[in-house]
Amino acid sequence: MPELRKDPVTGRWVIISTDRAKRPSDFVRDKVEIRGSGFCPFCTNNESKTPPEIMAYRKDGTQRDTPGWWVRVVPNKFPALRIEESLNRQGEGLYDKMEGVGAHEVVIETPDHNKTLAMLDPHAIEDVFWAFRDRILDLKKDTRFKYILIFKNHGEAAGASLEHTHSQLIALPVVPKQVHEEMSGAAEYFRYRERCIYCDIIHQEMESGIRMEAENEAFVAIAPFAPRFPFETWIVPRVHQSAYEQPSKQEYSQFARILKDVLMRLDQVLEKPAYNFVIHTSPLPESENEYYHWHMEIMPKLTKVAGFEWGTGFYINPTPPEQSARFLREAAVPVDDQSI
Amino acid sequence: MPELRKDPVTGRWVIISTDRAKRPSDFVRDKVEIRGSGFCPFCTNNESKTPPEIMAYRKDGTQRDTPGWWVRVVPNKFPALRIEESLNRQGEGLYDKMEGVGAHEVVIETPDHNKTLAMLDPHAIEDVFWAFRDRILDLKKDTRFKYILIFKNHGEAAGASLEHTHSQLIALPVVPKQVHEEMSGAAEYFRYRERCIYCDIIHQEMESGIRMEAENEAFVAIAPFAPRFPFETWIVPRVHQSAYEQPSKQEYSQFARILKDVLMRLDQVLEKPAYNFVIHTSPLPESENEYYHWHMEIMPKLTKVAGFEWGTGFYINPTPPEQSARFLREAAVPVDDQSI
Repeated sequence: MPELRKDPVTGRWVIISTDRAKRPSDFVRDKVEIRGSGFCPFCTNNESKTPPEIMAYRKDGTQRDTPGWWVRVVPNKFPALRIEESLNRQGEGLYDKMEGVGAHEVVIETPDHNKTLAMLDPHAIEDVFWAFRDRILDLKKDTRFKYILIFKNHGEAAGASLEHTHSQLIALPVVPKQVHEEMSGAAEYFRYRERCIYCDIIHQEMESGIRMEAENEAFVAIAPFAPRFPFETWIVPRVHQSAYEQPSKQEYSQFARILKDVLMRLDQVLEKPAYNFVIHTSPLPESENEYYHWHMEIMPKLTKVAGFEWGTGFYINPTPPEQSARFLREAAVPVDDQSI
Repeated sequence: MPELRKDPVTGRWVIISTDRAKRPSDFVRDKVEIRGSGFCPFCTNNESKTPPEIMAYRKDGTQRDTPGWWVRVVPNKFPALRIEESLNRQGEGLYDKMEGVGAHEVVIETPDHNKTLAMLDPHAIEDVFWAFRDRILDLKKDTRFKYILIFKNHGEAAGASLEHTHSQLIALPVVPKQVHEEMSGAAEYFRYRERCIYCDIIHQEMESGIRMEAENEAFVAIAPFAPRFPFETWIVPRVHQSAYEQPSKQEYSQFARILKDVLMRLDQVLEKPAYNFVIHTSPLPESENEYYHWHMEIMPKLTKVAGFEWGTGFYINPTPPEQSARFLREAAVPVDDQSI
């Protein structure tokens, strides 16, 4: 029997279409496999083929834009926004526009072309997270920016134009609509109950267990109650934190471990799917608050197209989250050895 | 120079990325061509292969579910929602859900497998529009429904699973988020100015002309100021109408003509692209109002993937609407002969 479910934060309704219910093997798509052929500007020794590096974690004594790094951040060669502009807000009749000020950076997650993020060891993933944080702390100083988006496109089907594993960061002078909706929904809940809605969600999910995918000391991975996409997964810190830059060293380490664990489960159950992830955090001007809770949303790219979803904001999801969570929870992946 | 533009109705910001600006020929994709091979349940003589017809325009004296029709409406064989359910709103801790009551219907636009909607003559397109209206009038009687979505997926890349040209209709017990946002934005504008924002948009667009694609007595086709997708096109009635079921006979005829004209322009400029369209109309309980203006949104499927747009509600569009509008406006298509 199909069900309509409402996302408790944004109020978005989703159809969970059990008549069309799909198991992992029902999704027809290409595995993401590293081909490794051709020239790659993100590989070691090709540092001169990217714009000059913004920062890198590299061996002592090595020079900028030379080998010796393990995480490297460079400007996007084809940026969607430019850092040099002034805001210059203008009207055009009843319309509003401003110049495209912003930053668009690429975080090269490893020098090794043949590794996916899921294959890196937790320490290496943690360093990617530190790079995100260092860039946020730096870009925060620029008061033109209201929001920093961190996201990853993995696999061609998810929009990756280069296969060498990397994430992206966009600093924006406006808050994206979907983040704004989450902020308003969370603020409204807080006004009414004086509790963070995400904290309440974690509490309910840990108690029921039916949508749990993985957990460790500091994080839970859950299938959201009203997911837009099959096998959509959220990774949420267990204690209240409004901004991505707040976790402790110990917590970033736990975040790296649970992300690796979830990505291995997705690879196993869905046979190396393409996916996108985004980190949702508080806008820069109010990054410390009691009502919003930063988290990562992972969306495997399984259904071939979005169809009418774009025009309506209305999603039909053929896999109930209780089912996708069970598949992921029960996947046979190596036990996370915390002693690594 | 990239630009940030704000949609005046919803408040959504879009990056118009001129650094990546693309001409029609820059979009790599497959032409939508009718192959016509294999069995098709939407063809004449195969009426028994669909669920029993809900309505059809057919020759006098012909029987239901037999040949003789020119537009035929049937239930979707794999419905996302079911008409038999009761609403049965329930909580589950802090979550809300209800049973998936709704209707999901398919409008087969012609018996001819080898025609696309763009190839039908204006009279035939007008009859498709009358079928939409007849179904809305019928489904409106069911007070469980709050909204009726009409949409079309054309081509496999846009989500069409059968190539025989058809549209779809979903009746919902809730208002989709994006429609709700348009309604709120339009209502707020109206409170402030006592004018419909879409009427003001039409006025400004007709005056400037830079985003005009086509017009006739009753409709305009424009590229919106802040389009999410390259070559996105809106068709809007020139006089204020809040609901799709309100136009006169003469107006539906003009709507058919302008849609055919726009689809031919898209086929010509973009070489038969896949596309989605949706009709945005007022919710059923308040379908007559002064502040909302029904319209059709056409989204050619040109960019290969949505990437991070899904997770953020933030869109990057590589083609400024002034450019796409000029390409479409200047396309060499047969002059619409109003005497047909």
